[in-house]
Amino acid sequence: MDEDLKDFRDLARTFAEKELKPNVEKFIANKQVDRDLWNKAGDLGLLCTSIKEENGGGGGTFAHEAILIEEQAYAGDSSWGASLHSGIVAHYIEAYGSDALKAEWLPKIASGEAVAAIAMTEPGTGSDLQNVKTKAIKDGNDYVINGSKTFITNGAQADVVVVVAKTNPEEAASGISLIVVDTKTPGFGRGRVLDKIGMKGQDTSELFFEDCRVPQGNLLGAEEGQGFIQLMMQLPQERLIVATSNVAAMEALLDLTLEYTENRQAFGKPIGKFQNTKFKLAEIATEARVARAFLDECIERHIKGELDIESAAMVKLWCSERAQKVADMCLQLHGGYGYMNEYPVARAWADLRISQIYAGTSEIMKEIISRFLKSGDVIPR
Amino acid sequence: MDEDLKDFRDLARTFAEKELKPNVEKFIANKQVDRDLWNKAGDLGLLCTSIKEENGGGGGTFAHEAILIEEQAYAGDSSWGASLHSGIVAHYIEAYGSDALKAEWLPKIASGEAVAAIAMTEPGTGSDLQNVKTKAIKDGNDYVINGSKTFITNGAQADVVVVVAKTNPEEAASGISLIVVDTKTPGFGRGRVLDKIGMKGQDTSELFFEDCRVPQGNLLGAEEGQGFIQLMMQLPQERLIVATSNVAAMEALLDLTLEYTENRQAFGKPIGKFQNTKFKLAEIATEARVARAFLDECIERHIKGELDIESAAMVKLWCSERAQKVADMCLQLHGGYGYMNEYPVARAWADLRISQIYAGTSEIMKEIISRFLKSGDVIPR
Amino acid sequence: MDEDLKDFRDLARTFAEKELKPNVEKFIANKQVDRDLWNKAGDLGLLCTSIKEENGGGGGTFAHEAILIEEQAYAGDSSWGASLHSGIVAHYIEAYGSDALKAEWLPKIASGEAVAAIAMTEPGTGSDLQNVKTKAIKDGNDYVINGSKTFITNGAQADVVVVVAKTNPEEAASGISLIVVDTKTPGFGRGRVLDKIGMKGQDTSELFFEDCRVPQGNLLGAEEGQGFIQLMMQLPQERLIVATSNVAAMEALLDLTLEYTENRQAFGKPIGKFQNTKFKLAEIATEARVARAFLDECIERHIKGELDIESAAMVKLWCSERAQKVADMCLQLHGGYGYMNEYPVARAWADLRISQIYAGTSEIMKEIISRFLKSGDVIPR
Amino acid sequence: MDEDLKDFRDLARTFAEKELKPNVEKFIANKQVDRDLWNKAGDLGLLCTSIKEENGGGGGTFAHEAILIEEQAYAGDSSWGASLHSGIVAHYIEAYGSDALKAEWLPKIASGEAVAAIAMTEPGTGSDLQNVKTKAIKDGNDYVINGSKTFITNGAQADVVVVVAKTNPEEAASGISLIVVDTKTPGFGRGRVLDKIGMKGQDTSELFFEDCRVPQGNLLGAEEGQGFIQLMMQLPQERLIVATSNVAAMEALLDLTLEYTENRQAFGKPIGKFQNTKFKLAEIATEARVARAFLDECIERHIKGELDIESAAMVKLWCSERAQKVADMCLQLHGGYGYMNEYPVARAWADLRISQIYAGTSEIMKEIISRFLKSGDVIPR
Repeated sequence: MDEDLKDFRDLARTFAEKELKPNVEKFIANKQVDRDLWNKAGDLGLLCTSIKEENGGGGGTFAHEAILIEEQAYAGDSSWGASLHSGIVAHYIEAYGSDALKAEWLPKIASGEAVAAIAMTEPGTGSDLQNVKTKAIKDGNDYVINGSKTFITNGAQADVVVVVAKTNPEEAASGISLIVVDTKTPGFGRGRVLDKIGMKGQDTSELFFEDCRVPQGNLLGAEEGQGFIQLMMQLPQERLIVATSNVAAMEALLDLTLEYTENRQAFGKPIGKFQNTKFKLAEIATEARVARAFLDECIERHIKGELDIESAAMVKLWCSERAQKVADMCLQLHGGYGYMNEYPVARAWADLRISQIYAGTSEIMKEIISRFLKSGDVIPR
Repeated sequence: MDEDLKDFRDLARTFAEKELKPNVEKFIANKQVDRDLWNKAGDLGLLCTSIKEENGGGGGTFAHEAILIEEQAYAGDSSWGASLHSGIVAHYIEAYGSDALKAEWLPKIASGEAVAAIAMTEPGTGSDLQNVKTKAIKDGNDYVINGSKTFITNGAQADVVVVVAKTNPEEAASGISLIVVDTKTPGFGRGRVLDKIGMKGQDTSELFFEDCRVPQGNLLGAEEGQGFIQLMMQLPQERLIVATSNVAAMEALLDLTLEYTENRQAFGKPIGKFQNTKFKLAEIATEARVARAFLDECIERHIKGELDIESAAMVKLWCSERAQKVADMCLQLHGGYGYMNEYPVARAWADLRISQIYAGTSEIMKEIISRFLKSGDVIPR
Repeated sequence: MDEDLKDFRDLARTFAEKELKPNVEKFIANKQVDRDLWNKAGDLGLLCTSIKEENGGGGGTFAHEAILIEEQAYAGDSSWGASLHSGIVAHYIEAYGSDALKAEWLPKIASGEAVAAIAMTEPGTGSDLQNVKTKAIKDGNDYVINGSKTFITNGAQADVVVVVAKTNPEEAASGISLIVVDTKTPGFGRGRVLDKIGMKGQDTSELFFEDCRVPQGNLLGAEEGQGFIQLMMQLPQERLIVATSNVAAMEALLDLTLEYTENRQAFGKPIGKFQNTKFKLAEIATEARVARAFLDECIERHIKGELDIESAAMVKLWCSERAQKVADMCLQLHGGYGYMNEYPVARAWADLRISQIYAGTSEIMKEIISRFLKSGDVIPR
Repeated sequence: MDEDLKDFRDLARTFAEKELKPNVEKFIANKQVDRDLWNKAGDLGLLCTSIKEENGGGGGTFAHEAILIEEQAYAGDSSWGASLHSGIVAHYIEAYGSDALKAEWLPKIASGEAVAAIAMTEPGTGSDLQNVKTKAIKDGNDYVINGSKTFITNGAQADVVVVVAKTNPEEAASGISLIVVDTKTPGFGRGRVLDKIGMKGQDTSELFFEDCRVPQGNLLGAEEGQGFIQLMMQLPQERLIVATSNVAAMEALLDLTLEYTENRQAFGKPIGKFQNTKFKLAEIATEARVARAFLDECIERHIKGELDIESAAMVKLWCSERAQKVADMCLQLHGGYGYMNEYPVARAWADLRISQIYAGTSEIMKEIISRFLKSGDVIPR
């Protein structure tokens, strides 16, 4: 944690305290953040921190992304889809887009002029990506896209969407390509913002593509059929983003619950003085600490380019499950107030539940991990 | 389960299917049920089924109450506070009210003309009932009530509220009395409907009493200071009501999740065919079945007047915790759809969380149970 | 619980207190019970209580079997394989044996003159019964048996063994038959008594069959190939026996732990006065109570002949898992003494672990349960 | 992990493979390791690796201790009390003993000529150290020790014991001193080796002191009454030792279970191919990996002298509980063989259970952790 990162944390914290925390209720009421939040963040250099400077980004590392994710969680906001915008979508374009595509979109994504989304999930397919039904069929110099997507974060605000589609519907994984779509393109449509248990300020939406025609240069990668491999390469960072958010949420919840139990009186003393409360708090603190140790190891390895697929799956599986458990214990320690949305623990409990589902369900994580297990590999040599 | 109960179940199911199920979204949008729902239910004889006929009730047993609770849960509604109205508040008045009080209120509560609530919890006291701050001070032939209450189910619609107050603020348990308050009385006020994680169609509210003057005949019991004992006597039925609702919710969720996993395809087959899904469903079904066995034993004993305090605490503790676990597993089996409010599992997961808190938290249940444990008492003689 | 059963419980308790409890250490040292324990029990009418009187049994119901199982558990003994002998093996012979076979063996099994075992599991097959390798090939009027078995309860003492073998090795389930083998038959051999984590006084053994020739009349059932169905019919009772033992163990452990925590002092007071201890005891008591409710329902239904296969699987799955959890919590409340074999909780913890494995593993139970689940069947009509 | 540590791991592994692994059954049968195991280890430089060279030790760090602990666990041995001997007792003497005491004992402990133990626990006190009853009363130039101790690792073989005693029985913590006792001293006696659930090759014993007279120079520390503080200073390393052993056990169990499930066939395929097995293995691997990350962080901090008391409590609490869970899952995946002592998973399951109890129970760990928790301290600044 060098000086640069410390300064960045200060910047991120100030922004989160000033722009996110006081607006949580408004974002929720509107089912989206204010559109100019993106521009403000872009102006301050908070977007695309790990995108190269030549592409308009901050030229930093995942450590910068992680700090902003943490500060957002500490501020109790789950509405702003910045980590997806910067940490995921921009990276698909930077890694696989042509120079023209990068020049077209990355500076705008970094400045907040364009909001970015990625469209993977479809109504009929959940985690089964090989089986997407959306098609992008070559027609002259264009792709014509047809299909529908759901559960799309930033869906209502997105100016640019990376779409997972079959350029060859006959094939499974090898038929999949990623294509960049400007949402002003005719044939692109948005459905309603979905009514979720939590994450209520996030504009998770359905998207529709009806003969939506985009230039063939919008393909990510030099040729068709690279989409599945591109997803496999980028998903570890997406999972690490979820885990980072989860661990920061655990820490925030521990802090809030300590404060509550230090102050709330029952039966003549602060409830934090009861042995059951003390033991639960010790369990929560241990959970948060253990998850943090594993997360930090994974972040460090990721920055070095050494985060393997199974570790990314493990850290996502672990942190998403334990964060929910921690939120549940914290909620219970708040008694009736824990069920009231004016207490952040209530919203956090409902928000966090999606983490075991999106970016690959816990079941998919276990499938992935199990594929890499082999006797003889466990004990160090 | 005799013919009478079967007929009653048919009646309750028809009502739930027709009046509750289609209106869930409306209730939630309005943060309360339609006021005339109470009247419709009263007309059909669905309210106060275990109140004596001479008092306007159905003259049945707790079995009737349980059936309505179950059918409401099967229909996926958590908005209507009928079980509290009929199964709790009416019983306080029947058990401890004067003939005049009974004549004044019970027929109206049974017909739905009056909606009933009970006001226990206060902002500064959760489960610590002995420490309530609301006062009801004798002044001439009246009690003058001052204080505030929170988390009051049916709070926004209530026409009559049983208030837990100190008639002698110097004393702890023995200073507590229960007093019936007509909500048209000057000095009675309602706060906002609280914004909760779930149970969003239920009008849980704050209540205020400012020099609220009621006749001394509104006292429940022959003399002051009986409130704490009256609460102890009635709380087992309240806890059994929560447990009944929880078990029915488990059954409803199992059924919905079986249906979903039978139909939803992924990776080329119904997800219900995957071993993990099969095992989880087996665990859920076992949970529901085990909870049902214990609940039915407790209901049977309660109808015979033999449900002891610790068994009521056990059944509430158990069913509320296991129902949440079941909801969580069912939600996960729904994947992303489990997080969407249009799927009943989503709402159920959020609704059920309150069950570990209200009617006495899990921690209070454990305190109660532990008081009755003694070596030598466990093994049958 | 009528007078007859009460008397039988007194008899069983006296026997358990006098013949089992003081000899636990001896049984363990010898890796088997005293041979004459069987005769003593037979003389008192404690064996084969639910076998018909005409066959030498007690003419009672499963309620009698359950009482003896419970009293054995209350006395802290896991060495004596009486429930298998009476409740399982004798029933195979009574249900499917010829009159001659019944006359030959049942009176001796009931009197304790013969100890009975059943040989299902093989070294190469665990729960996969359809795949047994032991063969019983018709040769003239005999079956010639070859194969090996393992994990056989009562293996070292058995005078008679019901063997699961393939009479038609070409077929799967339909090739399986059950055959009664007198252990004095040439070609029958016993391996070592296995060294287990717990259940150390039980003579769990390997058995070998080398050209072991038995008369064809020893076949159970009128024709070959009925074995798999016979197993399916009898396994529910075996699973109920395991569950009965588990629930009684939970009750015994709760009682012992209450006694320990009432008496043991630490930090200036009985450890039972600490909130954590109180809460854990409340959880344990609730676990035991809930399991008891479900078990009693299953026993009652079994006595009426109405215990279905999936309920038997559920009660076995549930009680075996929860008993281990209870034992673990009780052990922890004993501190260091919980790890010492002189405290019954230590042995119980190690003994109980087998319950999730034998009589069908938890995984097999889940497979079975899942096969019976169907949407639309859950909610009462 | 530099070259030196790699070489040391090779040395430790060779020793563990050659001297521990083949002798596990013998150690268990004898309820202790061979006495000359200590000398062999001493000759190879495996004892007292983190004791200074000037005191006869290896001059290494805790990293060396950790490697030997891990290799012992990988070899499946729990009998040899080397980590206590080297990592705990020797450090008390080195940290607090006079030059004469150090010269007398440390070279012998390092060479294996003397086996070392520490006597804390008493029959009447478990985790409540302030309340020990053993007294060491000054008499002339000697201390006269009276009292009894139990659960003493290396108790039967110890040549030197650090005894926790009250030099001032009137006081609580401040009355406690640590005194070195040569076990050849008259008045020192050994009770039986205790019969435990697991750890059966370890000579855990009772010790008795009857007018046992030792020179006053055997006091650890410059003055009396420092014992409690000395314990507080050294317990973190003891807890880290337990955690290290637990994590290595998890890794060994994962490896063994992978091997078993890769090879064991059921229902026509290796059991490792069933989805349930795959998911359980993924969970186990994740558990092991997460615990390893936290442990390594703690070891690294400990080597830098920065391991705080609450982190040591957390890592001990966490690793001991999760190792038991992992062992339980691994056992279950072995089916019936998991219950047989010839499979290492069986012994490991029983061995590991003590880890939640010794070196401070889980409950004590939670007490300690809770004392350090404070709102405002959780989120990084």
